[in-house]
Order: sequence, then C-alpha cells, then structure tokens
Amino acid sequence: MLEHFWSLLDQHYDEMVSIRRHLHMHPELSFKEYKTAAYIADYYHELGIDVREHVGGNGVVAKITGGLPGPTVALRADFDALPIQDEKNVAYKSTIPGVMHACGHDGHTATLLVLAKVFHQNKQSLHGSVVLIHQHAEEYAPGGAIAMIEDGCLEGVDVIFGTHLWASEPVGTIQYRPGPIMAAADRFEIMIIGQGGHGAQPHKTKDAIVIGSQLVTNLQQIVSRKVDPIQAAVVSVGSFVAENAFNVIANSAKLIGTARTFNEEVRTQIETEIERIVKGTCMMNDADYHYSYFRGYPAVVNHEEPTKLLQEFAGDVPGVNLVEETPLQMGGEDFAYYLQQVKGSFFFTGAKPNTNSQTYPHHHPMFDIEETAMLIAAKTLCQATIRYQIASVGKNSVQI
Amino acid sequence: MLEHFWSLLDQHYDEMVSIRRHLHMHPELSFKEYKTAAYIADYYHELGIDVREHVGGNGVVAKITGGLPGPTVALRADFDALPIQDEKNVAYKSTIPGVMHACGHDGHTATLLVLAKVFHQNKQSLHGSVVLIHQHAEEYAPGGAIAMIEDGCLEGVDVIFGTHLWASEPVGTIQYRPGPIMAAADRFEIMIIGQGGHGAQPHKTKDAIVIGSQLVTNLQQIVSRKVDPIQAAVVSVGSFVAENAFNVIANSAKLIGTARTFNEEVRTQIETEIERIVKGTCMMNDADYHYSYFRGYPAVVNHEEPTKLLQEFAGDVPGVNLVEETPLQMGGEDFAYYLQQVKGSFFFTGAKPNTNSQTYPHHHPMFDIEETAMLIAAKTLCQATIRYQIASVGKNSVQI
Amino acid sequence: MLEHFWSLLDQHYDEMVSIRRHLHMHPELSFKEYKTAAYIADYYHELGIDVREHVGGNGVVAKITGGLPGPTVALRADFDALPIQDEKNVAYKSTIPGVMHACGHDGHTATLLVLAKVFHQNKQSLHGSVVLIHQHAEEYAPGGAIAMIEDGCLEGVDVIFGTHLWASEPVGTIQYRPGPIMAAADRFEIMIIGQGGHGAQPHKTKDAIVIGSQLVTNLQQIVSRKVDPIQAAVVSVGSFVAENAFNVIANSAKLIGTARTFNEEVRTQIETEIERIVKGTCMMNDADYHYSYFRGYPAVVNHEEPTKLLQEFAGDVPGVNLVEETPLQMGGEDFAYYLQQVKGSFFFTGAKPNTNSQTYPHHHPMFDIEETAMLIAAKTLCQATIRYQIASVGKNSVQI
Amino acid sequence: MLEHFWSLLDQHYDEMVSIRRHLHMHPELSFKEYKTAAYIADYYHELGIDVREHVGGNGVVAKITGGLPGPTVALRADFDALPIQDEKNVAYKSTIPGVMHACGHDGHTATLLVLAKVFHQNKQSLHGSVVLIHQHAEEYAPGGAIAMIEDGCLEGVDVIFGTHLWASEPVGTIQYRPGPIMAAADRFEIMIIGQGGHGAQPHKTKDAIVIGSQLVTNLQQIVSRKVDPIQAAVVSVGSFVAENAFNVIANSAKLIGTARTFNEEVRTQIETEIERIVKGTCMMNDADYHYSYFRGYPAVVNHEEPTKLLQEFAGDVPGVNLVEETPLQMGGEDFAYYLQQVKGSFFFTGAKPNTNSQTYPHHHPMFDIEETAMLIAAKTLCQATIRYQIASVGKNSVQI
Repeated sequence: MLEHFWSLLDQHYDEMVSIRRHLHMHPELSFKEYKTAAYIADYYHELGIDVREHVGGNGVVAKITGGLPGPTVALRADFDALPIQDEKNVAYKSTIPGVMHACGHDGHTATLLVLAKVFHQNKQSLHGSVVLIHQHAEEYAPGGAIAMIEDGCLEGVDVIFGTHLWASEPVGTIQYRPGPIMAAADRFEIMIIGQGGHGAQPHKTKDAIVIGSQLVTNLQQIVSRKVDPIQAAVVSVGSFVAENAFNVIANSAKLIGTARTFNEEVRTQIETEIERIVKGTCMMNDADYHYSYFRGYPAVVNHEEPTKLLQEFAGDVPGVNLVEETPLQMGGEDFAYYLQQVKGSFFFTGAKPNTNSQTYPHHHPMFDIEETAMLIAAKTLCQATIRYQIASVGKNSVQI
Repeated sequence: MLEHFWSLLDQHYDEMVSIRRHLHMHPELSFKEYKTAAYIADYYHELGIDVREHVGGNGVVAKITGGLPGPTVALRADFDALPIQDEKNVAYKSTIPGVMHACGHDGHTATLLVLAKVFHQNKQSLHGSVVLIHQHAEEYAPGGAIAMIEDGCLEGVDVIFGTHLWASEPVGTIQYRPGPIMAAADRFEIMIIGQGGHGAQPHKTKDAIVIGSQLVTNLQQIVSRKVDPIQAAVVSVGSFVAENAFNVIANSAKLIGTARTFNEEVRTQIETEIERIVKGTCMMNDADYHYSYFRGYPAVVNHEEPTKLLQEFAGDVPGVNLVEETPLQMGGEDFAYYLQQVKGSFFFTGAKPNTNSQTYPHHHPMFDIEETAMLIAAKTLCQATIRYQIASVGKNSVQI
Repeated sequence: MLEHFWSLLDQHYDEMVSIRRHLHMHPELSFKEYKTAAYIADYYHELGIDVREHVGGNGVVAKITGGLPGPTVALRADFDALPIQDEKNVAYKSTIPGVMHACGHDGHTATLLVLAKVFHQNKQSLHGSVVLIHQHAEEYAPGGAIAMIEDGCLEGVDVIFGTHLWASEPVGTIQYRPGPIMAAADRFEIMIIGQGGHGAQPHKTKDAIVIGSQLVTNLQQIVSRKVDPIQAAVVSVGSFVAENAFNVIANSAKLIGTARTFNEEVRTQIETEIERIVKGTCMMNDADYHYSYFRGYPAVVNHEEPTKLLQEFAGDVPGVNLVEETPLQMGGEDFAYYLQQVKGSFFFTGAKPNTNSQTYPHHHPMFDIEETAMLIAAKTLCQATIRYQIASVGKNSVQI
Repeated sequence: MLEHFWSLLDQHYDEMVSIRRHLHMHPELSFKEYKTAAYIADYYHELGIDVREHVGGNGVVAKITGGLPGPTVALRADFDALPIQDEKNVAYKSTIPGVMHACGHDGHTATLLVLAKVFHQNKQSLHGSVVLIHQHAEEYAPGGAIAMIEDGCLEGVDVIFGTHLWASEPVGTIQYRPGPIMAAADRFEIMIIGQGGHGAQPHKTKDAIVIGSQLVTNLQQIVSRKVDPIQAAVVSVGSFVAENAFNVIANSAKLIGTARTFNEEVRTQIETEIERIVKGTCMMNDADYHYSYFRGYPAVVNHEEPTKLLQEFAGDVPGVNLVEETPLQMGGEDFAYYLQQVKGSFFFTGAKPNTNSQTYPHHHPMFDIEETAMLIAAKTLCQATIRYQIASVGKNSVQI
C-alpha cells in the first residue's frame, strides 16, 4: 500500500515543483497571505475536497475522510514568506520586491497539496481521516497556529505531524528528536531610568550607561550560575542604546534581548531571574526601571510514541539514507502549540541544494532548497500517516 | 586713581547694559561671529583706538598704550553664543532662532569694551599698556584662543587677566584660585568590533554588547584605583550605542565619553589607561577595537603672583563682599592656552540673578545674568590692571 | 539460564550483605586500600579463581574462563573509601575514625565478588570469559583505572560494564544513557600577581582583589557566551583567597576552581578561554598571573550497542520496575578511561534507602544504601554479560 | 626673645638626641607605654614642672604657667611604638624584640620635653601658659587622644599645635595646609552569606565568590561615580577570603576594607553607598549579608588662623629653607580630635635621613629619622607658641 502511494507521489512530482515555483514567485508576508490562501483553497475545491477557509485568519483546513474506520491524522504546512529581497538568479525568483520565500514554506505547501491529492485519490483504503492544516503566519509572533487552533482546526484530530525542509542537511536525511526539539523564543525589554547630567559631574547623576553595563554583565550569571547546566538556555541582549553627546551622563538606557529555553520551568526561572537582577542592579544605583518579558512561541516538544514511529520507519522511505536524532535547535516554531493540544511529532527533512558552491542559511537572500527533498518529505509524512492509522486499528498484519 | 576709574565705570554703566543687550539680541555661533566681531571693531574705531581684526579668525585685538612706562596687561573677553533656543521672556531676548548667549559672553564683551573706553580716556596716567583680547569661539573646540595666540595676540604681553560671569554665585562674590582652576576637557571614542550573529547562538559570535558593558564597568577603575586619589579626575562614557533587533547579537558597539583632569600627567595617564583597558577587554573576548582620544582645552592653571594680587585686593572693589577660593571647576575654558604662554589669572565674578525664583545654570534656555555684575567685573579687572602695572614699576607708594 | 543464575544470586544474598558490611566497617582511603585488596584477592584464592594482585597499584583482577567459545566481558567494581567521619548509627558503622564508605564502593565490591562466585560455579556454560576488575582509587585523581589499564587489565577484553549504586533513585530503577553520561571533572588554579601597597594609595598598586573579582565576573561568560548552549558545561571558582589587613591593597589573589564538560572539544575550549580571560584581565591591569589547568577524569561516554542491550533487557531483571534514560550527571568517574579503550556501558542502579526519613547524598556523613539494590545490580550485570556473550556468538535462539 | 629661645634649644640639642635614643631603645606598644609614660613624668618632676599622669590612660600632661597674662597654647607629642622588628644596624637600635619606634614618636617626645625645659626656664617672659600633651596610643584605634580629651587635657587650652617628623621630606622643609590635611581612616567588613554546594551544581547554590566579586567590582563606582570628583576619597577592599576545595561553591565570603575621606559628608556618603551596593548585589543574587562600618580617626582639619601663622613665620626658623603647602595625606592621625575641640594646626617637619642610600618609609623595619629635624621641630613649635601668645595680647610691637 505504501509503495503504491509513493509511486503516485513520484508521478506527481512535476506538479509539486510547479506549485512550489508558483508560490515562490508570488510570496506574501505573514498575516497578509490572501492570494496564497485562495490558491490553496482553489486546489482543494478543484479536487472536490472538503475545505474550510479563513480559519483563525488566513488559515485553510481540508479534510479527507477515509473509507475505513480509524484515527484522524493532521498534517501541517505553513505558507507565509519573509520581508527579504530575493537575490537568487533563477527563473522562479520572487516577483514581489522585498518579499521572499526564504524559509521553504512554499515547499511545505506544495508537498502537502500533492500528498492530499494522492490521499484523496485513495481515500477508500484509508483507515481513518486526514486533516490538512495549511497555516498562515508562522514567521511572525503571535503566529497563525494559536488562532487556527482556537478556530477549531484540531477538532477530532488524534495526532499531528509536520516537517521543515532543512537546508543545512543533505537530501536523504531525516532528523527526529523525542521531547524538546526547538526552543521557546522570548523577548525582553529593559529601560534603565537613571538621572542624566553633565559628564564632568557624575556625583549629581545616576549613570544609566554604567547601570546598564553592570546589568549586561550580571545577566551572564543566569546561564552560568542559575540554570541547571544540563538545561540548554540562552539569554542575549541584542540591543543597548543610550545615545548622547560625549560630555553628558546618560539619563536612560534601553536594552532589548531574547531568551531561549526548552523547558517551561527554566523559561519561568529566566523571566524571574532577569527581573531580580534588574531590580538589584537598579537598587544599588538608586535608579528605576521598566521591565517587560514577552513570551514568544513555546518550545516544540515532540511526543514519544509518534516520534518513535518516525525514528523506526523513516529509513524505509525511498531516498532516505540517514535517520538521526537532531541536536536541539535554538530557533522557534509555532508548531509547538499543536503539540500542546494533541500528540504528534515535528521533524526535519534534509533539503540542502546539490550545488558545488556555498549553501545559504534560512532567511538569507540567496536561500534555496533542493526540490527533490519535497518528495521525501511527502513520502515520510505519507508513511507516518498510514503507519499511525494502521497501528491504531491494531492491524499490524495488514500489508503495508 | 582707582576711585576715579571706578567712578567713570559707574557713569558708563548704562552703555554697558545697552551693549550687552544688543549682543544678547544678536547672538552668533562659534566661528561664525562675523557681525559681533565687526561690532566690536567698530566700537574701537569710533573711539580711535588701535584695533586689529580677523586675528586668528574672528578675533579682535585692541591696544591702548599708556602714557608712562610699564608692563603690558592683557584682558580677555570671549564673544560667541550657543546653539540653544532662548526661552526667556525679556525685552532683550535673542532674535535669532536657536542661537542664544546662554553663557554670559555678551556680558564679558560689554564689560571689556566699556573698560577699554575708560582706560583710553585716561591712558596718559597708565604705567604701561593694555591689550584688549576679544576672542571668538570659546564654546567649540579647538576654540579661538589657540589661533589668536598663533596670530600674535600675546606679543609683548606681560600678564593676562580674564573673568567669567558666574550665575551660580551671588553678585558681590569674587572667586579666585591659585594653580589649577578649570579642568582639561577631553573626548574619547571607542568602537568595539565583535562578531554579530543570531541571538540564540552566542558561541558563534563575539558579543559586542557584553564586551562594551565589561569595558564600561572596567573603566570605573581608572578613577577608583589608578589615579592618585588627591587628583580630581573624571572618566564618563556618555554614549553607548549598539542598536539591533532583539534576537541578534551585536556586531559592534560605539562608546563615546569625556575625561576631565587638572594635571597633564594624570591626563596622559588616563589616555593610556583607557587604551590598556580597552585592549585587555577586547583581547579576552578575541575582539578588535578602534580607540581615539582627542585632547580638548587643557586645564586652566592660574599663576601664583597675579592670583595673589586678585585675592588681596578684590575685596576693595565697591560692591564686592566676598572674596573666596573657588573649588575646582570640572568645566573647560580655552583661557588655558593664554596661561601656557604668559602668566596670569582667571577668576569668577558672581552674577546670580536677583530673583526670588529659580536660577538657571549656564547653557540653559532660561539662563540670564544680573547685569550689575558686569560693573563689578569691570572694576575688578581695572584694579588688577592698575595694581599690576604700578607694582611692576616699583611705585608702591603711588597713590592708587 | 539467566533464571538459574539469578536464583543462585538470591541464595548468596546474605553473603553479599555480609561482605559489604565487613568492608563498610573497614574502609581504606584511595591508594591505601591494602587490606581491602588482600581481602578481595583472598576471596578469589579460596574459590580457586585465577587472580592477579597489585595491578597498577592496589588493583585486583580475576578471570573466569568460560567453557564455550565467546567474547570476554569485563565487569568493574571500585573499592576505595573517603576521608569522611561515619556518623550513622548502625551496627556496621565504620571502625576507622575519619574514613568511611560514603559512596557505595563497598556495595560494588560485594556485588561483584558474589557474582564472580556464581559465574565460577557455572563457568562451563559461559560463552566466553568474564574478567572481574576490582579497581582501587576511584575517588582521587589520577585514579586507579588508568594505571590498571596500563598494567594490562583490559587485555583481551571485548566489552566492559560497570554500575554505580545510586542513592538518589529508588531500588528497582535502572538508569542508562547512550553517549555522554558523566562529566569530565577538571581543576584549575589561577594566581593573580598584582602589586600590594597601602589601602590609601591605590594608584601605587595593582589591586589583586579587584583584578580577581573582575576575573570571576568575566569567567561567567564562558558558559553564557562561549560554549554552544546545547552543550552542558560548568565553570566554578570554588576558592578565592587574598587575606590581608583591612588597610592594605592585596599583592596577590589565589583562585581555584573546577570545570565540567561532556565533550572533549568543549573541554579544550574552556581550558583555552579561561586563559584568554585571565590574560586579558591581567593585561588591562598591567598585572601578571600563573595559570594551571589540570585534567581530571574525562567524560564517561557510553557506547551505543552495549547501552542499547541494557536499555532493552534491564526491565526483565526481577525487582526492576523502571528503566529510564538518566539526565547528564555532572560528577566524574574514571570508568571513562575503560570506555576510551573498549566499548562498554556504565549505568546507575537505584539504591535509595527505604526509610521514612531523609535520604543523604553520596559523600555525606550519614550516607547509606539499601542493600537489596546489590542484588539487582548483580543480576543486571549478570544479564548484560550473558546476553552480550550469546548475542556475539550468534546464538540468539539459545534459551536464556 | 625667639632668638634667645632658639639659642637655648641649640644648647640642649645633645640632650634631645640622648632622650630620643633612650626611647628608641625602649619602645612600647600602644596602650602599653607604662615605662615611657613614667620616663616622661619623671622628666617633668625633676624640673619641678606641674605634671598629671594617667590622663585618659597612659597620657601625661604638664603645664607651664607664664609670668604674663595671655592665652594657653597646647603642644602635643605622641609616644607609642609599633609591632615591628627593628632591622637597623645602629647603636640605639630597639632592645625590645618585635617592637620599634618606626614612626618617629620617640623624636616627637624628645622634641617636646626639651622645648618644655626651655619654656620652663623662661616662663616669666611668657604671655600665657603652655600645656604639654604627651599622648599615648596614636597608632591604634580608638587612640589615646579621645580619652585624654575626655579626661580634661584640653581644659583651658586656646590653641593647639602638633607636628610629625616626616621622613619623606628633607630636613629644612616645613609643610602646612589649611583645612583638611590628613584623612579619616575607616574600616568596613562585609560578610556575604550565599549558599554553598557542589561545584558542578551552581543552580542549587548562591555562589558567594561570584557575589563577592561583583561587589568588589561594583564598589569601584563609589569613587568613580558617586563622590564629587573634587573630593579626595578612597575605598579599598584589602581582604577577600572564601577558602574552599576546588570542586565546591562557596557558602560565604568575607571582605574587609578601608575608606579614606577628608569631609564628613563624603564619609557618611561612602558608608551609605557601600551598604546600598552590598544590598543590591545580594538582592540580585537572593543572598544575605552582614555589613559593619567602623569609624576610625576623623580627618585632621586645620584651622585657618593658626595655620596662617605657621605659613607666614616658619620660614624665619633657622635651618628652614622651604615652607610649602603639603598635598593631602591619605593617612590618619588622632590629632584630629583635638582640632574638633579647639583651634589649632598640625604640620610636617622634614626629617629625611642625610644618607646617600635609600630612605625607608614610616612603619618600615629600616625606618629612621635625621635627628637634627627635632631641633627644627622644636624651634617651629616654639615660634608658633610665642607668636600666637603675643599676637593674642595685641602686642605686635613686642620685640620677638
């Protein structure tokens, strides 16, 4: 059965490429993906697949009901682009100035649409249903996932899978990880309110630059002393601004930064410790402060069972030659929200371009993927769906 | 003889006020004081006093040759204004938007012009000559003094006196100080060149904000540990700029600051120590830097003998009720350069407005002086000139 | 076959307890375990087992040659005690003042001796040989393992297993972990050489306390900024000594600390980064330093295959009710050296006392273990040995 | 009249040397100067001068009542020695192991005794009385001065003079200074109470070494930012002790230091600022602390009028060739307490040994003075006494 699905996917590979290139040429920014959403919905309409539009915003959700009883498996692909100027020299280059699919979401969408077509064509043999979640706005907090969930996209769903085409790994690699896989990515802002004055009269001031500098230095201790060393965590101040003439003493200083964690307890600890240090540093300088901590996406935490399924069977997919545990990734993903509601697993599909020259990282103006990776992504998602359904109905002896 | 001069000054007080108010209404920025310079020169021309224009720029130098042999005493008044919007509500408010005599240089000029007139009217009785140095551009380094000196304004001068109308002290106060009185005011710039990157990947970067923060913290030790505690010194970082998104690590940080000292050895020590600390801090972070130290005006260092003369006799001037040693002033003044060439003394003349309300500091949009202070300044300068000349010719018995 | 061995172990449990208590009452410090070594050797002599004494010091190595062909499996138990005063109130309390088996090595030894007896009694049925490595001096670097290896204790050995009775986990728990499991534990010493002087004259000194304090602060950045956040690492300064009168400035300061890592690259990075920071901090203060970094035991890094064997089958051992992956342990173990020579796996056997009151941590004067944990340890080691040997000879169908 | 006194002092110079050498050979520690006090009292008894013993401890006070009406002038000499081993190779070397007159107090005493004899021989011509204050325990807080004052040594005194033989300046130099001349010398102790633990588990601790290091770094800002830059001040941490094994995290750290100031307001500010910084630093680390600030001698603040008298007339003393203002001295002196009660002035008398080799600082095992400096000290004190008395009785025309 799997062989049959894979063979169908092979046959539709050209369409997959064609869809991906169309989307690549017409990228839209997060929360503004109107045409892309319509394009996706049209694809389903034409196939006669049941589809719901405007889910939690620009989200699109389709459902294929299987001919046999069984669980509902959701598959998710995001479809927003980035405010980056495409600098590649290819035929399918972005036609929209300053906007670009620089993270592979075009490929995610193409993969899922074609896979949906194959499922639809064979729905009678499916042991359960498949929900296709086309999510808008992954790149920009608060993201589209949370709104789509609130709008019901997970209703009736038993398990969810998602993948990211991953340009740092070669085509043929599947990276899984049970438990935390991607970090919670939070933002904080600190305004030090000292008291400005003349550079020659420090004793009449509360020097906001000195206070801010102590603060940055003291913040290093959160990771070095406060967080359990076996917990990965980062606290970075990315911006420090106190711009004045040379001969004054700064009245205030603004610091902005990010914290990355994989564990809610550590996350809360960092939020608390930053404030404790801000408070103590300001107190010792008799200064005031404003402190805000904004929670971004939580950590993506994969569930044991569906991850094990990937780990065990991904190697069977044609073209896959390496199935390995990924190290923790410090980046964030709002796939995290789905996994807080239902079990599931998020994995990486190697998509490194087969060029002799340099590979560019995600979010780079020269970013591209190797398109054959989409086929591997589709087959791996296909297998996960089928195997999960069959295992659930207890028909291990079914020929798959 | 002094009594006579003072009486003449009293008679010309209205003119002094009138000149000051005219200048106050027509302020000009440093190095652009064309009309003011012409106004001053015209005043001398009309009196038939020998005057040289365009001295080292917009400087004006007049000379009154005394009828009797004796030393040449120079008196200096500066005449530039500041880029500040006058916010006072007075008839003589500045007519030039964004430019204002917010430091009292208008008063200095009026004082000196009227004093020159009185000397001129009585030049036959002078035991030596008087040189009137009207200096442009005191407010903006490199200042006008150094150029005027290079252009010969001190030629033949034996001693120089100058005063600053001082709004923090009441009218009737004269503040002298032998040795250092005002600070050398230098500027430094430090560019930390780290290596930027993603906020979640500090190990691939050299975090310029962390380096800059350590640097600011470490710089505190120059004053606390390195400089002799009996030497007044200040090192202030006034500006710290590393502006980035919250989720990056800064590639570079720019720090700008000022150093204040009263002693050339300490000044050089600070210039050297800053670099040592920058170098060590960057080395420990494997980062690079650019460091520049710009020497502003040197410290104003009064000479013993002419300062003693002020100290002893200033109390005799009508209206003076307090002659005291001023504490060190951390501000700078390019009068310093004159004192490196000839002996002399710079002092403060109390000019605090007689209002019941708040007094505003120099360089404030509401700054003003009490105009009667000009009369005291003129009489004190007059006395210093006469006493110095008579003492020099050994005629202590002369009736003064 | 396993059932039979387990049954024999059950029958010998009383002897195991008796041996353990004898050793507990007669602890000996690292490198001074003469009587303990003789006790172990005697045990083997009495059984007629081939034994070699004085291996790399006080080490004892016995060998049981199986009746059937197959691989050689080594099992290791350490037997040194600690310089701690036993404060427990039990019959088998230490009889040596200030020396105590406060880490469970007495239990390790009893476990291995009795397991050896059982193997010996059934050696004809073993598919390969068993080497019993009784190691001295685990508690004190450089440890006994390295010397025993140099003296040939691993000759002919194909795989090695070891366990630690673990008082923090309940009896019935087995904790495995593939890859790094325990940290490399290194020591560093830094002597800051400033220039002392009078407390009132900082400018004539190089203040070693200020330099040392900056250094400690700056060292925090190694973990917070320099080490890859997904790598667990610790840098702690445990001792800071600059003892002087209140009114002096310190001439020198001595700092001693530890670094913990799980990865040789990170270990080398930390050794290098500490020196870079010491060097930069001293340079900026024009001071000197001595820096030494002493490598303790490397990280214990388990091999994939033998760890998997434990993971899969440990649950079959009677009494085991939880087999789980342990989090990284920041402590060190010289079992690490064996794993650098041959493949193998080190695991933890839960040994938390069944008391209602407080449990005491390893190295605590009140430390104790639940003795039944020894039986579980013996059975798990027994199973690992048998399963490894049978798997190696390809007789998966053998009834075990 | 002065000439006559000076001539008498010259005649008694040998006695002065002899007394000084006797005391030098028999030094006694602070608060234990029993024999020295008796020696002094005996000297007065033999001369028939009114003397009071055991004043405020070991203090001795003599009084010479002049034959003419006038003010009472007190002269003070201290007489305690130091816990230092005399390492000089001279005939008059200390005979007491580990105790030495390493600060010149022996010379102070010899000077004053011989001067007293001369005054006594000529008391009929004195316009007022002279009180000779021989003070014990200057070297060790709380010092002898405060107890002697409480015991009445200043009763009836109008003015007080004192000098210190000063080995850093050549014989012939007198150094005066109006206002502050020597610093207030205070002591502080800070105990950081963190929470100790294992060096590999920082997250379970509050690292007292890290906290203490931050504290030392932060304390630098008191002088660099908080104190008016024209005020000389020092804050030094002389001792930092947290001694532990390399693999632990410190539970506590003890810091001890000194603060030096010349102004009571700054002194109080520093006491307050240290605590603010300790508090903030501990708060940000959730740690506790103990903080104590012990006030030592206050600053020695000379009065204007008697200082001016020294400044004007010291140059007339035979042998004096330089009268100059001393820079601020950061050391302390309990002469400060006398000046809080009556007006007076403390000055330095150059006493640098006339050797070609190295000069040793006060409190050094090789310290010595040039003995002829005692004669200059005696004459200068004599002149100050006589001139003050005569000026007070308005007899400026008196032949002195």
